[in-house]
Amino acid sequence: MPENRQVVIAMLPTGPLKAYDFELRSAELPVPGDGQVRCRTLALTIGAGQRAGLQGSASYAGAPVTGVVMGGTGVAAVDVSNAPGFAVGDIVVAPTGWQDYSVHDAARLQKVHPGTDPALQLGVLGTNGLTAYFGLLEVGRPKPGETVVVSAAAGSVGHVVGQIAKLRGCRVVGVAGSDKKCRILTGELGFDAAVNYKDPDFRDAFKAATPGRIDIYFDNTGGDILGSALFRMNVHGRIVCCGAVSQYDTNDPGPGPRGIPGLLVNNRVRMEGFLVFDYLERYGQAREEIAAWIRDGQLVPRVTEFRGLERAPSAFVELLGGGTIGTTIIRVA
Amino acid sequence: MPENRQVVIAMLPTGPLKAYDFELRSAELPVPGDGQVRCRTLALTIGAGQRAGLQGSASYAGAPVTGVVMGGTGVAAVDVSNAPGFAVGDIVVAPTGWQDYSVHDAARLQKVHPGTDPALQLGVLGTNGLTAYFGLLEVGRPKPGETVVVSAAAGSVGHVVGQIAKLRGCRVVGVAGSDKKCRILTGELGFDAAVNYKDPDFRDAFKAATPGRIDIYFDNTGGDILGSALFRMNVHGRIVCCGAVSQYDTNDPGPGPRGIPGLLVNNRVRMEGFLVFDYLERYGQAREEIAAWIRDGQLVPRVTEFRGLERAPSAFVELLGGGTIGTTIIRVA
Repeated sequence: MPENRQVVIAMLPTGPLKAYDFELRSAELPVPGDGQVRCRTLALTIGAGQRAGLQGSASYAGAPVTGVVMGGTGVAAVDVSNAPGFAVGDIVVAPTGWQDYSVHDAARLQKVHPGTDPALQLGVLGTNGLTAYFGLLEVGRPKPGETVVVSAAAGSVGHVVGQIAKLRGCRVVGVAGSDKKCRILTGELGFDAAVNYKDPDFRDAFKAATPGRIDIYFDNTGGDILGSALFRMNVHGRIVCCGAVSQYDTNDPGPGPRGIPGLLVNNRVRMEGFLVFDYLERYGQAREEIAAWIRDGQLVPRVTEFRGLERAPSAFVELLGGGTIGTTIIRVA
Repeated sequence: MPENRQVVIAMLPTGPLKAYDFELRSAELPVPGDGQVRCRTLALTIGAGQRAGLQGSASYAGAPVTGVVMGGTGVAAVDVSNAPGFAVGDIVVAPTGWQDYSVHDAARLQKVHPGTDPALQLGVLGTNGLTAYFGLLEVGRPKPGETVVVSAAAGSVGHVVGQIAKLRGCRVVGVAGSDKKCRILTGELGFDAAVNYKDPDFRDAFKAATPGRIDIYFDNTGGDILGSALFRMNVHGRIVCCGAVSQYDTNDPGPGPRGIPGLLVNNRVRMEGFLVFDYLERYGQAREEIAAWIRDGQLVPRVTEFRGLERAPSAFVELLGGGTIGTTIIRVA
């Protein structure tokens, strides 16, 4: 009988996350009840935002606890079905968590086309891509010719934001954490410019890369990059607050950026937070549009893959340290 | 021949403003050129935002300099007219500055009804009232039953914001800097609750006053009160960034509030700065509506008056110290 390997939260991290904050354990296979389905995980995605869920205070996902399976979204194959509409072998996207097998009420599963690569399903066609799509288009509302700046630009959301902004006729500047990432952004993904925030001359380089200032700043980082962007906003600019990765891998998030609220007033800037779940009923239409862009070669999705469930903790550490590009995927089976 | 008394910026303040940062001097009467009008100032209004204009860095109004007449808006009587459409004795609103006589291009003057009290003209029917009107209605977009919190609630803008919010069917909570102000807000201006931010138990009292949390926070202060409000926002709440009086009377504004951008994301909060001048073409309609509310007793304007141009500097200091209620007016003549 197969085992159910699980990656469990062993300790709540107090500083930067360590792989040993998790442990691998073996559990019995869960048994689905009536109306439930058991799934075998094929692939998982990890996002930097999950680190925020491990901080002491409750995020929108609730307060973290130890001894439980680390949460996460996966692509899985139906293994046992006690629910009408699901057959063994069906491929679903599910809140599998970091484990081989999981049981779900049928209502929590989303059946997907079996031929689609799980990395695309979880990345650009999943929450990451949808976050980029709705955040940029619905919150940022780009107009042709505007300058869009995106931070964590080589990340799962950022690299899609930049490419959609190009499709909408904008000038796009990415901020990322290495020269290699910057080269990929401008050389392979069509960004007009990219700036390495670890460069000692970052502020000057950032200024030089935004000669017409900034109309939309898509913020995945918070912190100092948000602070720099605030001082470069155009009148009636928009700041799309998507994430705050600079504040995640710590239990002591710093103070907010200077210039709030003064700069927002002087330049009549709108700064707006959003969660993609608020756009649930429009996911289908957005996925179709994104899939068409990929098919036409107008949007190039990037993925960093790791093989083996046991590598999920170290992949998460690498992601938080800036070592991955695009969507981070763990191939489980 | 009459003299032209002028209040001049003697020094740029480096800490809290002092009356001796200004000096009174006597100048010759200015002579209007072709198409110009000379005005005799009847009354001036002073707003806390003018302190920001004296800080070292340039605000939206440009960088400050010494040796010039302190700027400001007044109600004035036309004294000499070289411009068609203006006759001696006409009453105008003009950027008179703190002086008895000033000369203006006709285009910069706005003729007003001679019977209207200058205190109303400069207060609730002027920039202060219009700021409250457009900020609350256009940026905040209140819905009946929502909770609106306003800071500097007894100030020129705040006391109007709260009353308009009541007219729109909202529950209204004011934050002010003295128990006396709080009593006026609830006892005379119809606020549902008021909290003194200088109270050592402010955070608890603020929480108790907003049991259903906050849908709209109209921010006139920035700083700690903004920080407290951020932690009490409802999902899809709005923060109207109007002013930052806590940051004005200093040359060392503090860091921004904690929780930005994290709290904006989790609660999908929109935080938006605005300047009333962007609504210029709608002033007329707004003034009519405000005037009707006053006539019907639905909106009670409050004013603190000082007599004599020479008292403008000490009135400004008193305003910044929280000693005035409603619009601050200097009766000049």
